[in-house]
Amino acid sequence: MNDVVGLIGGTGPQGKGLAMRLAMAGHPVWVGSRDRGRAQEKAAELNDRIGTQGSGGRIIGEENAAVAAESKFLLLTVPFEAAPDTLAGLWSAIREDALFVDVTVPLSFEGGVRVVVPPEGSGSLHLRNILPAHIPFTGAFKTLPAHLLEEIETPLDCDTFVFGDDKEARQSVMSMIERMPGVRPIDVGGLSAAATVEGMTALAIRINRRHKSKVGRFRVLGVE
Amino acid sequence: MNDVVGLIGGTGPQGKGLAMRLAMAGHPVWVGSRDRGRAQEKAAELNDRIGTQGSGGRIIGEENAAVAAESKFLLLTVPFEAAPDTLAGLWSAIREDALFVDVTVPLSFEGGVRVVVPPEGSGSLHLRNILPAHIPFTGAFKTLPAHLLEEIETPLDCDTFVFGDDKEARQSVMSMIERMPGVRPIDVGGLSAAATVEGMTALAIRINRRHKSKVGRFRVLGVE
Repeated sequence: MNDVVGLIGGTGPQGKGLAMRLAMAGHPVWVGSRDRGRAQEKAAELNDRIGTQGSGGRIIGEENAAVAAESKFLLLTVPFEAAPDTLAGLWSAIREDALFVDVTVPLSFEGGVRVVVPPEGSGSLHLRNILPAHIPFTGAFKTLPAHLLEEIETPLDCDTFVFGDDKEARQSVMSMIERMPGVRPIDVGGLSAAATVEGMTALAIRINRRHKSKVGRFRVLGVE
Repeated sequence: MNDVVGLIGGTGPQGKGLAMRLAMAGHPVWVGSRDRGRAQEKAAELNDRIGTQGSGGRIIGEENAAVAAESKFLLLTVPFEAAPDTLAGLWSAIREDALFVDVTVPLSFEGGVRVVVPPEGSGSLHLRNILPAHIPFTGAFKTLPAHLLEEIETPLDCDTFVFGDDKEARQSVMSMIERMPGVRPIDVGGLSAAATVEGMTALAIRINRRHKSKVGRFRVLGVE
């Protein structure tokens, strides 16, 4: 159970908070950047911020290709606009037995927050076609606010929706998430759920703006 | 504040529970059916079930056109498949100052639950075009499980997402909902939010099935 969790774009807003939370849960975490020096610098900074909190996993910084080669769970946390190019440049480096986890959401902030829906129907369906078919494709963490993830003293206290057409991959990703305190993975089935989950990200941001919050997130009640 | 809340198709699964909860909150409630006798019979049955619970509003049964003529808040709770025909036959009867509230979701249960997305992008956008433009169109209650609504002893304990392009109408609908205990109306902005909210209904049913529940519903945390 010491599979590496890698974050492509792990030095960005969504990636940083997730990397710290995952490391605090005891996962070995690698954060990737295009630039190795920058990744190492950020990793040191994140390790400092974690300090002695959690079960003390450490974060390693490397360039994206090295992270792709090392990670059993490969999370994509770059902005969606950069995702297709980033992935296209990486896929030959990805471990054969990797499980891919898409965290991106194609958002536009012009004239109100909304999802810029790709022709395939969702961001995840668009990215699925870029990755080789043998790599199981899942989505998770899409509705978790970056701001909340970075406030590592604050309990996450919410659910995250996990989807993907490969049931075993989905379950492995859910087990990986279950080690993180305060967040419950909820299985929402196949990739067709991606459009709604991505829409919920935009909805949460709309709600945040009206309520002057930065940490609005979802919980499903009535299910054990 | 004694505006009538009417439910077109108020004798059906979603309508019955909502009618009882609204009456218990003190709203004068009219439930509509194509058949006056059936509406009156159902209203008597619902009044019996409420008994002395809540602030004792009473439910009146009438045919749909009479309900449309009487209601300040006009809720559409027929199955989505019947909604276009029902609305087309009713709109000339609707009160001039009515606020329309769409509760329907175009769901398919074949091979897993999913939204059957109309060409306009959502069920609400489809129905908006059928109603005269001067009637403000909102959506609410879409993600509340019928099963939970009918269990009137159980607190709702969740949020409901309210949308519509007319801000004043949205606020009036939210005030109407605020009288109901246990459910918080959340303003999610214009009609473009409908697709995501309808998707969340399908998502909740998917989650219910996996968790052998009938009462899965959403709450937004981190917003006051």
